[in-house]
Amino acid sequence: MKQNIYDDPEFFSGYKALREQAHNYNVLLEQPALRALLPDLAGKTVLDAGCGAGDLSAYLTARGATTHGIDLSEKMLALAQKRYPELSFERLALEDIASLEESYDLVVSSLAFHYIEDYTGLIASIRERLKPGGELLFSIEHPLTVADKQRRYWVKEADGTDHYAFDDYQEEGRRESRWFVDGVVTFHRTFSSLLRPFLNAGWTLEAVEEPVPSEEAIMQMPRIARELRKPSFLIVKAKRFLRVLGEGVDHPLSLYNQGKGREDNG
Amino acid sequence: MKQNIYDDPEFFSGYKALREQAHNYNVLLEQPALRALLPDLAGKTVLDAGCGAGDLSAYLTARGATTHGIDLSEKMLALAQKRYPELSFERLALEDIASLEESYDLVVSSLAFHYIEDYTGLIASIRERLKPGGELLFSIEHPLTVADKQRRYWVKEADGTDHYAFDDYQEEGRRESRWFVDGVVTFHRTFSSLLRPFLNAGWTLEAVEEPVPSEEAIMQMPRIARELRKPSFLIVKAKRFLRVLGEGVDHPLSLYNQGKGREDNG
Repeated sequence: MKQNIYDDPEFFSGYKALREQAHNYNVLLEQPALRALLPDLAGKTVLDAGCGAGDLSAYLTARGATTHGIDLSEKMLALAQKRYPELSFERLALEDIASLEESYDLVVSSLAFHYIEDYTGLIASIRERLKPGGELLFSIEHPLTVADKQRRYWVKEADGTDHYAFDDYQEEGRRESRWFVDGVVTFHRTFSSLLRPFLNAGWTLEAVEEPVPSEEAIMQMPRIARELRKPSFLIVKAKRFLRVLGEGVDHPLSLYNQGKGREDNG
Repeated sequence: MKQNIYDDPEFFSGYKALREQAHNYNVLLEQPALRALLPDLAGKTVLDAGCGAGDLSAYLTARGATTHGIDLSEKMLALAQKRYPELSFERLALEDIASLEESYDLVVSSLAFHYIEDYTGLIASIRERLKPGGELLFSIEHPLTVADKQRRYWVKEADGTDHYAFDDYQEEGRRESRWFVDGVVTFHRTFSSLLRPFLNAGWTLEAVEEPVPSEEAIMQMPRIARELRKPSFLIVKAKRFLRVLGEGVDHPLSLYNQGKGREDNG
């Protein structure tokens, strides 16, 4: 089922107000960490998967990229199109990326993949839309944050201190929480499950980061200091790699040594 | 400082008794997961880094490998030598791996790296002792387990349920805990810090696993079911890869295409 919580009027107005605050977790933590891992963008074609109100697409365009933004939410897309009328946006679920015809130098996605039930299928369909050597860069809710099914979050102790409640880690799948409205569904995956698709020969894993707030960010928004105790975001960067047609997949070293590597553009 | 807690008489006797139990976390969870990731061992030379009482060395030897076990603890080595007199053991700290002269097809390490302060240096020195294409396979305490500086572990709630206390994640470094004796020192590293050395062109990351207990293991030791809620172990496997001499490091794809890759055996 494709979730379209962003078109829920109450969710939409709450989310919009949050993102319009000068200081929020996106502006102070997630976006700086994601953007620090962007490759050179001049002349590149970029798919912005889960583009929301289009701010990341606009940032990429300003640095020389040609972007195409997709999102399932009509309301978010209307906002994006109004703000950035010169940019390309399309209503499309991330689950339907395979229906796109173009190939991209880069696929970026900011905090959208945790809404998708079939993560492995999503990564495979993104790979098919990347040019050989193209890259995927995405942020996702950190497994530490979403594991606990009861969503107890920060738990107070008798002496006034607190800690983060952790549980249910190996039980992957659907989690419900309240975020502006009840019943927002995200999908919990372990670290190892999030990385597994990128450890095959079809990809080279390039970065795994857990953003740390800067001192300046903490001054601007003191409660973001909690990120030092419990991370909210995970960022992954990977490059589409050679794949050998035929039986099995060879290690790149043997490909090089034997000179038998072949590109699979399929 | 090289920690030699295994030679503390009280620690040693407690640890020895634990490992001699038919059902413990090593036998039921960590060793099966580690061993499942072993490559073909026939004719291979293997360094067992932190070999303890030598059981893993013996397992590897039975599968055709020639092993060399190193450990800092005299008591553990005496036990290993007594149990497996035909195998090769040497008293050497993991911090001094660079002083070994042989190169190995495989370096394995079971639950030793969290005792080492300079993790990045350790991984670099292991790389130098691996043959090109050689592999490193190790288990380590999971960052989730060791992050909390107060070591609150499982916290009871008013209604009788419990959860695991999580905290201090981004504050890497020294942690003290009680395990048989007070003051056992381990070093906390984040998930991203543990993987970072392997995301350079000098390595290919092959596996990242968080072992899940089998139904049989849970039947034999019911409390190991808690591993479904909070993992204790992380397992990493990586292969020593090509490195280009001179300026910068190229992506394997460009090496292949340009035919300019060179092996660095240094």
